[in-house]
Amino acid sequence: MKADLLLDSARYVVVCDDSATVLADSSVAVADGRIIGVGPAEEMRTSVEAAEVIDARGQVIMPGLINLHTHLPMTLLRGVAENVDLQGFLELVWAEEARVMDPAGVELGARLGAVEALLSGTTTALDMYFHPQAAHRGAVSAGLRHVIGPVFFSFPGPDGLAWDERMAMARRWPDDLAAIGGPHVPVAYMPHAPFTVEVEHLAQIAELARETDAIITTHTSENDSENDDTLGSRGMRPVACLDESGVLGLAPVLAHGVRLDADDRRTVAAAGASVAHCPGSNLKLASGAADIVGYRSDGIRVGLGTDGCSSSNDLDMFPVLRLAANLARLVQHDPAAISAADILRMATLEGARALGMGDRIGSVEVGKEADLVVIDTRVPHLTPLRDPHTAIVFAAGRSDVRHVVVAGDVVVRDRRSTRIDMDDLLDEANARVGT
Amino acid sequence: MKADLLLDSARYVVVCDDSATVLADSSVAVADGRIIGVGPAEEMRTSVEAAEVIDARGQVIMPGLINLHTHLPMTLLRGVAENVDLQGFLELVWAEEARVMDPAGVELGARLGAVEALLSGTTTALDMYFHPQAAHRGAVSAGLRHVIGPVFFSFPGPDGLAWDERMAMARRWPDDLAAIGGPHVPVAYMPHAPFTVEVEHLAQIAELARETDAIITTHTSENDSENDDTLGSRGMRPVACLDESGVLGLAPVLAHGVRLDADDRRTVAAAGASVAHCPGSNLKLASGAADIVGYRSDGIRVGLGTDGCSSSNDLDMFPVLRLAANLARLVQHDPAAISAADILRMATLEGARALGMGDRIGSVEVGKEADLVVIDTRVPHLTPLRDPHTAIVFAAGRSDVRHVVVAGDVVVRDRRSTRIDMDDLLDEANARVGT
Repeated sequence: MKADLLLDSARYVVVCDDSATVLADSSVAVADGRIIGVGPAEEMRTSVEAAEVIDARGQVIMPGLINLHTHLPMTLLRGVAENVDLQGFLELVWAEEARVMDPAGVELGARLGAVEALLSGTTTALDMYFHPQAAHRGAVSAGLRHVIGPVFFSFPGPDGLAWDERMAMARRWPDDLAAIGGPHVPVAYMPHAPFTVEVEHLAQIAELARETDAIITTHTSENDSENDDTLGSRGMRPVACLDESGVLGLAPVLAHGVRLDADDRRTVAAAGASVAHCPGSNLKLASGAADIVGYRSDGIRVGLGTDGCSSSNDLDMFPVLRLAANLARLVQHDPAAISAADILRMATLEGARALGMGDRIGSVEVGKEADLVVIDTRVPHLTPLRDPHTAIVFAAGRSDVRHVVVAGDVVVRDRRSTRIDMDDLLDEANARVGT
Repeated sequence: MKADLLLDSARYVVVCDDSATVLADSSVAVADGRIIGVGPAEEMRTSVEAAEVIDARGQVIMPGLINLHTHLPMTLLRGVAENVDLQGFLELVWAEEARVMDPAGVELGARLGAVEALLSGTTTALDMYFHPQAAHRGAVSAGLRHVIGPVFFSFPGPDGLAWDERMAMARRWPDDLAAIGGPHVPVAYMPHAPFTVEVEHLAQIAELARETDAIITTHTSENDSENDDTLGSRGMRPVACLDESGVLGLAPVLAHGVRLDADDRRTVAAAGASVAHCPGSNLKLASGAADIVGYRSDGIRVGLGTDGCSSSNDLDMFPVLRLAANLARLVQHDPAAISAADILRMATLEGARALGMGDRIGSVEVGKEADLVVIDTRVPHLTPLRDPHTAIVFAAGRSDVRHVVVAGDVVVRDRRSTRIDMDDLLDEANARVGT
């Protein structure tokens, strides 16, 4: 068969399907942006006629990582608020946002974030930030599969929009998204959180989302004081607000979900909603440690995210993999609490399912869009390599990511963006913030 | 002045002294293995005549990281025991140790570990493993400052030695160490743990350590069952065993120290002993989360370590920095629990003090031995860079380490070992274990 690209003779293909399949000495063929073949290297070499061949000997091919909760433009706010409590944190972040985050700043920050994400093996991000058009332009310019949409507050918020303006923006969003282009993503709406968006407003978003077939993401129960605030202002816990408004019925992605009680957990599981677990940010802001093993037993889908760079400092999913695995062991008092394969599936196939894209991305299988990462294993910290899932979760890092393919396009080759001039990008970011 | 080496025009020198000094646009001069000048780049350029100049523009110079608890040869056991409880873990590790860990395996594993450590910015490791001569030969061949010494068990142990043979080896150790050579390190003795070494035997080690001016390290209160076992077999908690035997009076390095109670903490602080905090390993084995902020308030010195690759999978201190900072926030329920500068000092100057080497290494100051790391900051995940301590602890990683100097020798240049052929090393490791 004819292919645009053959990733040839990988040491392992880590499929990330439900049975945690690993194929030794195998190749992956890509045409028209999709995976058209996965199989033994020798067989593929004779049956595939490829326009381009990438040598993957000694390397691991895996699906691109899916960052299920982040704020990409906040790369420009990296390190702006450190060693302070939450109130001090918000004051510092808001002041810097006001200073640098006009649409041009948002576009630049998202471009920087997308390059950083891609270089560390992330091919899809569920982003949330105001000026979504600007953020989307920035992220897709680097080649990232970038899910974003209008953010909602019931008050004017950082971008100063009135409610009706937000709803009008949301109605236009499917057209805006199509006009900007980039790898396929769903329409998305992003109510900030139940404590900042009234239940009646949440209901309007849910109604529109049903019309436009949009996904929804929102911050939910990140910490105890968020739960208390919501209970105080809405008379209900965050999950109940989402349930009552109809948002939960659309199986949204609940960012953080650190403090879900037993009732919340039952409700979230019944709705088929997902939690975007961001353990690095949750620890850094002292929000707590979500019991993801318990959530999964309850039937809640769990994906993984970094959160934004103001609280997580980088967009690297590898430390998130490792921390999620280790923190689950601490929370459960059990060194066998969760396997490396399950953790890696959270950051790939489960993330895809949370986005309603489980049939399109998230695993290395024929028919899916080709979102692929090639990891070099010829390094001391991955030697010896007994099990690739374990190596990826507990020892690999961003510097092991050698090539990245999104929707069939090679967007990182030999550790460099093929789309963005790195020196220009770094200079522009430094100039923008004055560092 | 004449110098062997000038690290020229660093963006920042992160000194890691007690006042967390940061010098912008500065250089570091080295002669005869020691730092002979630290100052403004322009001044240094005119006053220093250097045999070799390394361009450090856009980079950060910091002291080499000190890994205060590891088992370097266990690189060869990487990934051998995963997703199992502690009993399953030990069975798998012991079986693989018996298979591959003869002296040649120990030397190879230590060499691999030393290369991995150096490439990730660690210049000094407090190692613990049997066949210490072999481990030391392996580690110093890569240029690592490698602290190791005889391991003690009251029973024969994995190396099958009787008690008298262990004591004889310990008396010979200062001469063995001198014969093997390498960067200066103290003599060290390594009783495995109070539950595996009787109090009378601990007392013999303490007596010998006073004679030979040796430091001591031992596993202490890693988890609850260790405390229970010790209480059961010795009638005392681990810290009491160390106190009664005289070991604690020599200010040892206590590996892990996860489960120290209030009495233990007072005793450890009064003795001037140090805790080697290994948060990654402690979480992975579900041992718990040491309250290092509380320990420091009690007056206990805390350094940081990775533990061995069978429980931590790699030897990278950067994830340890980040996790130690984040875990302290979780334990203390306080996002301002500890600063990035304090965390970084634990992995440098505090580690040096724990080894009795606080006047020799651990900071970038004139008169100290030149153990230096040069970090490249021209990468997206370190841009913008507002504070170098924060950037190093929360966003940097091993791939940012560009050059490494130990005792004045450039042992890593442009991300490659200057001492060890990497392809040969990886082939040899794979051949040894059959991967």
